[in-house]
Amino acid sequence: MSAITSPLKAEDKKVVTAALQGALVDLLDLALLGKQAHWNVIGHNFRSLHLQLDEIVAAARGHADTVAEREVALGGNPDGRASTLANTSEVPQLETGYLNDGKVIAAMTDILGSIVRRMRERVAATEKPDPVTQDILIEITQDLEKYHWMIEAQR
Amino acid sequence: MSAITSPLKAEDKKVVTAALQGALVDLLDLALLGKQAHWNVIGHNFRSLHLQLDEIVAAARGHADTVAEREVALGGNPDGRASTLANTSEVPQLETGYLNDGKVIAAMTDILGSIVRRMRERVAATEKPDPVTQDILIEITQDLEKYHWMIEAQR
Amino acid sequence: MSAITSPLKAEDKKVVTAALQGALVDLLDLALLGKQAHWNVIGHNFRSLHLQLDEIVAAARGHADTVAEREVALGGNPDGRASTLANTSEVPQLETGYLNDGKVIAAMTDILGSIVRRMRERVAATEKPDPVTQDILIEITQDLEKYHWMIEAQR
Amino acid sequence: MSAITSPLKAEDKKVVTAALQGALVDLLDLALLGKQAHWNVIGHNFRSLHLQLDEIVAAARGHADTVAEREVALGGNPDGRASTLANTSEVPQLETGYLNDGKVIAAMTDILGSIVRRMRERVAATEKPDPVTQDILIEITQDLEKYHWMIEAQR
Amino acid sequence: MSAITSPLKAEDKKVVTAALQGALVDLLDLALLGKQAHWNVIGHNFRSLHLQLDEIVAAARGHADTVAEREVALGGNPDGRASTLANTSEVPQLETGYLNDGKVIAAMTDILGSIVRRMRERVAATEKPDPVTQDILIEITQDLEKYHWMIEAQR
Amino acid sequence: MSAITSPLKAEDKKVVTAALQGALVDLLDLALLGKQAHWNVIGHNFRSLHLQLDEIVAAARGHADTVAEREVALGGNPDGRASTLANTSEVPQLETGYLNDGKVIAAMTDILGSIVRRMRERVAATEKPDPVTQDILIEITQDLEKYHWMIEAQR
Amino acid sequence: MSAITSPLKAEDKKVVTAALQGALVDLLDLALLGKQAHWNVIGHNFRSLHLQLDEIVAAARGHADTVAEREVALGGNPDGRASTLANTSEVPQLETGYLNDGKVIAAMTDILGSIVRRMRERVAATEKPDPVTQDILIEITQDLEKYHWMIEAQR
Amino acid sequence: MSAITSPLKAEDKKVVTAALQGALVDLLDLALLGKQAHWNVIGHNFRSLHLQLDEIVAAARGHADTVAEREVALGGNPDGRASTLANTSEVPQLETGYLNDGKVIAAMTDILGSIVRRMRERVAATEKPDPVTQDILIEITQDLEKYHWMIEAQR
Amino acid sequence: MSAITSPLKAEDKKVVTAALQGALVDLLDLALLGKQAHWNVIGHNFRSLHLQLDEIVAAARGHADTVAEREVALGGNPDGRASTLANTSEVPQLETGYLNDGKVIAAMTDILGSIVRRMRERVAATEKPDPVTQDILIEITQDLEKYHWMIEAQR
Amino acid sequence: MSAITSPLKAEDKKVVTAALQGALVDLLDLALLGKQAHWNVIGHNFRSLHLQLDEIVAAARGHADTVAEREVALGGNPDGRASTLANTSEVPQLETGYLNDGKVIAAMTDILGSIVRRMRERVAATEKPDPVTQDILIEITQDLEKYHWMIEAQR
Amino acid sequence: MSAITSPLKAEDKKVVTAALQGALVDLLDLALLGKQAHWNVIGHNFRSLHLQLDEIVAAARGHADTVAEREVALGGNPDGRASTLANTSEVPQLETGYLNDGKVIAAMTDILGSIVRRMRERVAATEKPDPVTQDILIEITQDLEKYHWMIEAQR
Amino acid sequence: MSAITSPLKAEDKKVVTAALQGALVDLLDLALLGKQAHWNVIGHNFRSLHLQLDEIVAAARGHADTVAEREVALGGNPDGRASTLANTSEVPQLETGYLNDGKVIAAMTDILGSIVRRMRERVAATEKPDPVTQDILIEITQDLEKYHWMIEAQR
Repeated sequence: MSAITSPLKAEDKKVVTAALQGALVDLLDLALLGKQAHWNVIGHNFRSLHLQLDEIVAAARGHADTVAEREVALGGNPDGRASTLANTSEVPQLETGYLNDGKVIAAMTDILGSIVRRMRERVAATEKPDPVTQDILIEITQDLEKYHWMIEAQR
Repeated sequence: MSAITSPLKAEDKKVVTAALQGALVDLLDLALLGKQAHWNVIGHNFRSLHLQLDEIVAAARGHADTVAEREVALGGNPDGRASTLANTSEVPQLETGYLNDGKVIAAMTDILGSIVRRMRERVAATEKPDPVTQDILIEITQDLEKYHWMIEAQR
Repeated sequence: MSAITSPLKAEDKKVVTAALQGALVDLLDLALLGKQAHWNVIGHNFRSLHLQLDEIVAAARGHADTVAEREVALGGNPDGRASTLANTSEVPQLETGYLNDGKVIAAMTDILGSIVRRMRERVAATEKPDPVTQDILIEITQDLEKYHWMIEAQR
Repeated sequence: MSAITSPLKAEDKKVVTAALQGALVDLLDLALLGKQAHWNVIGHNFRSLHLQLDEIVAAARGHADTVAEREVALGGNPDGRASTLANTSEVPQLETGYLNDGKVIAAMTDILGSIVRRMRERVAATEKPDPVTQDILIEITQDLEKYHWMIEAQR
Repeated sequence: MSAITSPLKAEDKKVVTAALQGALVDLLDLALLGKQAHWNVIGHNFRSLHLQLDEIVAAARGHADTVAEREVALGGNPDGRASTLANTSEVPQLETGYLNDGKVIAAMTDILGSIVRRMRERVAATEKPDPVTQDILIEITQDLEKYHWMIEAQR
Repeated sequence: MSAITSPLKAEDKKVVTAALQGALVDLLDLALLGKQAHWNVIGHNFRSLHLQLDEIVAAARGHADTVAEREVALGGNPDGRASTLANTSEVPQLETGYLNDGKVIAAMTDILGSIVRRMRERVAATEKPDPVTQDILIEITQDLEKYHWMIEAQR
Repeated sequence: MSAITSPLKAEDKKVVTAALQGALVDLLDLALLGKQAHWNVIGHNFRSLHLQLDEIVAAARGHADTVAEREVALGGNPDGRASTLANTSEVPQLETGYLNDGKVIAAMTDILGSIVRRMRERVAATEKPDPVTQDILIEITQDLEKYHWMIEAQR
Repeated sequence: MSAITSPLKAEDKKVVTAALQGALVDLLDLALLGKQAHWNVIGHNFRSLHLQLDEIVAAARGHADTVAEREVALGGNPDGRASTLANTSEVPQLETGYLNDGKVIAAMTDILGSIVRRMRERVAATEKPDPVTQDILIEITQDLEKYHWMIEAQR
Repeated sequence: MSAITSPLKAEDKKVVTAALQGALVDLLDLALLGKQAHWNVIGHNFRSLHLQLDEIVAAARGHADTVAEREVALGGNPDGRASTLANTSEVPQLETGYLNDGKVIAAMTDILGSIVRRMRERVAATEKPDPVTQDILIEITQDLEKYHWMIEAQR
Repeated sequence: MSAITSPLKAEDKKVVTAALQGALVDLLDLALLGKQAHWNVIGHNFRSLHLQLDEIVAAARGHADTVAEREVALGGNPDGRASTLANTSEVPQLETGYLNDGKVIAAMTDILGSIVRRMRERVAATEKPDPVTQDILIEITQDLEKYHWMIEAQR
Repeated sequence: MSAITSPLKAEDKKVVTAALQGALVDLLDLALLGKQAHWNVIGHNFRSLHLQLDEIVAAARGHADTVAEREVALGGNPDGRASTLANTSEVPQLETGYLNDGKVIAAMTDILGSIVRRMRERVAATEKPDPVTQDILIEITQDLEKYHWMIEAQR
Repeated sequence: MSAITSPLKAEDKKVVTAALQGALVDLLDLALLGKQAHWNVIGHNFRSLHLQLDEIVAAARGHADTVAEREVALGGNPDGRASTLANTSEVPQLETGYLNDGKVIAAMTDILGSIVRRMRERVAATEKPDPVTQDILIEITQDLEKYHWMIEAQR
């Protein structure tokens, strides 16, 4: 069943929807981990990180929606279920329990750095098959690199 | 390590944080599944369901945050990571791929009905140990029962 | 025909929807009478009462909607037609024609006092069968008692 | 007792306040029936009608207030009590219980059509005695005819 | 010098701009007198009248602007200078010094009644030569009659 | 096929929908020409005209929508396609290329003057068959005459 | 009759309320003249001046209200009636009829310059008897000098 | 003198108004102490605490108003004068002078913990005599426990 | 006459302004056709399509303005007159009269698909001569492909 | 310990911080007493005073914050604790229990009059040592004198 | 060439415009340096300072505009070009590269302290020649002293 | 010291941060010069330019912030101090003193044209090393070219 007519050729569609599905998993997992830290962080910088993490979560949720809707607009089927995230995410995970502020800064720097690396590969991969999708991935990368700086600067 | 002093006695805290953790898993999974259907739904009622599912997702995210922050305020540690959701959620799951509008209505009726049943058990379980938490669970149940009606009415 | 699956057992549903239907009649009649006084009041305190009555009408309309939607979410069928109001309302009525400000204050004190008495009975009646509905009725009672004071204080 | 000095002559005031009182009953009954359908509607178009009916109710309430305040500004006394509505309304009524979406569309088309007919008679009746009131009735007719189209178009 | 081309014939323009100029003087004087009372009122109803008078002033200023811009759009030249107001206004005037609340109510009832009478003459006078202008005058009359009621109701 | 029941008699409907269709063509063409000048204007008054033209376009679009929705509410079928505009519009057209500010002022004065003339004929034509439609046309005429003045005043 | 207890000694009150009454007349006349020019201006700069004059009128009205309320707070009685303005204003007046844009700029420069001169005298006169009033007059002077520049800069 | 008719029996009213008066004193003193720390805090976390304390003060003021208005709605007389606070408050006090950020965190943790303990006693005490009041106290307790966590997490 | 200095070389300007002019015609015609369907649609999905079409029209108007202003910023002269649209548009047209909801969905899917194909050609054509313009066209393509999906998903 | 470097010389700082501390006590006590009356007022003017008192409380709280932050910016330490207010305030106090509207008007006139007298002394005392602080005190005095009039005018 | 007529005498104008030009340089340089630190700050307090510096920059930009517009209103010519700032600013400068949070706090304390000293001299210098300008400088000084405290308090 | 980990390789980072630093200097100088003209412009078009220049300044400030934050996110250190601007800016400078409106238009056309030329070089230079940065520069170029047209069109 293929309800939505893709503006892309079959082989381009395959490459591009794979990139978008990968971005979707990264972004949804970022949102879940950002909330995990938002709730369990303690330490002198609690309040500042608590607020900053919510901004990152809001951005991740917004970007995830953009990416998934782009995937379906190209005739793909985004998959953002918990089991899909648990099985396919490459994002470094957080432990349970309280997280000291220093640990949150280190872990979020790694998490964002890891996602940025994959986003840049997707920017390269989609340039030829679909510059329209590439433009979306470029804007998301830009935003994630800004948050990466704003977390790392607190070390 | 127990950074936050609980206002509850140890045994009450155990019961109440378990109820809150259960509610958190239900609500975060509802948000993920609501988005899954929001993206993949097709059919004559596409637009209406697409919009309605986003309202449910927004409500689920807001309630999840309230529940998790209540858990930490009682000295617990909420866990909302993808693997925790995948392993402990009792919410009926959706398949991948396109979802016809009729199927979305049937599945969301089941999903909301299933969560409402567990929420009512939690309302009962927390009444004695912590009426303050119970009040939160009551308001969330009320909201979920409203969405259950608004989905089921479309059958 | 029972389109909406109730989360309550049959006997509980009967008690609770009866309480909600009673509250609905009280609140819709309060809105109609509040407007009746809003239009026909005269006297030195005209403007203050004219404005205050509109706040009460707005509150009554909002609460009526909450109560009716709760009734249907529980599998009931709210009835707010003019004939139902005229036949079943227990709210003291206003005469036609101009209403002096002192008369409005006396009448609205009675009207609100009468509704509050029935709302408190409904709070008691729903506690066991459905604490979720009870919570709604408690919040409405609280609001009506506030307006009762704010009217009575002007005597 | 005639507290408000009318800008109209006695015979004109009689005709015009009668037209306004008739419009008031139509509009208040429209608001009650619109809510009745808003709560009890079921079917595939539930959500769209549920929202649309609330827009009609909001418009009806706003117009009712305008009409009643015009009546009192002319030295009349608007009467919008439940018994007055039940006894004098000529609006076709709805049954109790669930209302299928198709039935709601048919019934609301009748209800709006019936009110529009009477409003056009009032526009004609008030032209000579009070063009200021006529202008209000014209604007309300225009709005009701728009809602009539928007309901009927869904058949 | 006639910079703006009138859509009206010369004789119609004469009648209509005269009506508009008369309305302008009435409305600007109402705004000045409303402020005069807004500042100098004393008595138990001080605050309510102080606020209500500002609503009347705001309405008068808005209507004056509409009327003057209509006059110039028809090729006329509105004149709202202090000396023109002082020389041509037929609005009953207020004394200097403190104004008791009862006196304000009596005076504003007279002032509004006097303006309404002239506005109704202008509505009649403009019907044939320019129904577009008449429509503006009708809406202003409607608003002034509402304020007349809301002041007179406080006697 | 006549999906919408008209509140008008057949002969009245014919006259009134013709007037509305004529107004629709005028207003949509005004919007297109206003944008044409908004983009191509040059000269010392560029910025002021660029902004003013966008206000006129916004007004024209809003009025066109009102007029077309009125037409369909009366059982007519508005036609606002490019070919219909090109074939039936009586609005004076603009040349391609840059437009000096003085030229824009002269041309827009003509364009608005031409539309106003036809609008006044429609006001007259609809008075008897449908005063409700006439009221809409009166308000649009009033607005267009205001813009006519505000353009012509810059000569 | 002296309803409001002044915080000033009798001789100080006399000086200060005289300064405030003078400022009130200046500001109310500025508002009337600003509107007069707002309506009757023509020329290439019509739109820019039309908008700018409305900003000056809004400022003048706001300052007039502040000044009059200050006067009454000190136990004085502000007088802003048309005849008072016509008889006591020292503001240079405008002629009737169209006003070319250049003429408006010249006249408003004079008007604002004239008021500023008197305001600076009032600033000096109130320094000793009431620095609280002086502070109000200083802020108004500052605002008027800004408008003076913004008009004069267009010569 | 008992102007407001209580919906409660005399003995219930006594218990409930005592609980509300106690809550009022706690909340008003929390607002005063929160401001005291808001002004005098110094240290690396100055800005974060300065802002957070203002949120707590705003919440405390809002809850105090709710509690006092509930007290008067039940026929009691809230007392929130400085001497009443100084004489009856059980909230741990702050010293004068600068307060290091660490000290503020420790003191506010104590202050909030102390109030929460008393609020939970009031929740228990009002359950039987007035579930409507209890619901208010539950919501306030929930909010205070959230702030307690958000302060303590910074240790 | 070439009033605006282009940042592009002559041959690049030619290619790029041609692409922009083509996009302008597509987008303005989309806006006119979207309104045509917005007014004439009937059927069960009337309301949902009526609202959705207005979102598409708003987007088309916004994009058309961006494209035309880009064209003039590059030294070109956008042409969006009715005759130009009628003569040069390649967008599939709608018939007059009522449009069933199914027909609207089919036609709008074609219309959007047709425009998207041309937009993707323009994205390719402008990459080398002007990446700044290309970026605008990419963002518009992205938006149109989203609307294409949201219409097609309703089949 | 003196964390904040004062811009003032030691003797000036002493005079100015004393004035600010005195103003702080006056304003915080005004806020507490305003709320006391806001809750306990009864009588025909209940609603008007209830609302007006809340405006005064909001102003008093805002001014208190400004004054305290000014004190700390000058190197002082504001003290706004309940015991400090109870021990050092010179503001006339209110009794417990219901307060008739007439009594509230008399008492608030005294309270505001008493504070204004001390504020004017502080304006004089700070002129030389710190005109920056004086400017703050002048603006607060101006605002309090406005409220004094608006209360006294109701006698 | 002296386009703007000064309300001041020549010698007063010279003193006052010099003070304003000095303030302009201070404030524009504060804005540039605040941004420099906003971008390059690192350390645990990164986020708090990053946000706080933007508030200071926004205030500095707003005050600079007020000061420059005052200068031109007095017949002067403000100069805020980069070379003027580089050549005449007396504000302590920041180094290039990363700035640790502690360093930012120390440097901004110095920068604000330095500007405050010069602002107080300008307040003294303008008192006699132009109290209107002095009032502006007093308000800016007050704001800068508040930021000085809020930075210094973090040491 | 290199606190922020760059997502770019060293040689790419060098090229890209140089482009960003160049853009930063251009944009900050544009903001300073835009304000310089905003304050000192005189002539018939004063008001229009005064407003338009502020829009350009606001855009320049926003873009400068984006560019500088991008630079630091890539591990660079933006430098926006006055001396850096004075020494490295290639933007054509304005003279001191009044600026006639024609001169402002000519100068701003040059200034914007000069910056656009360098921005287009930076777009080309960053394409390979960092398409994410290129996308930012493209959007800024697009905005500046729009302002260039809007200024040049006024010649």
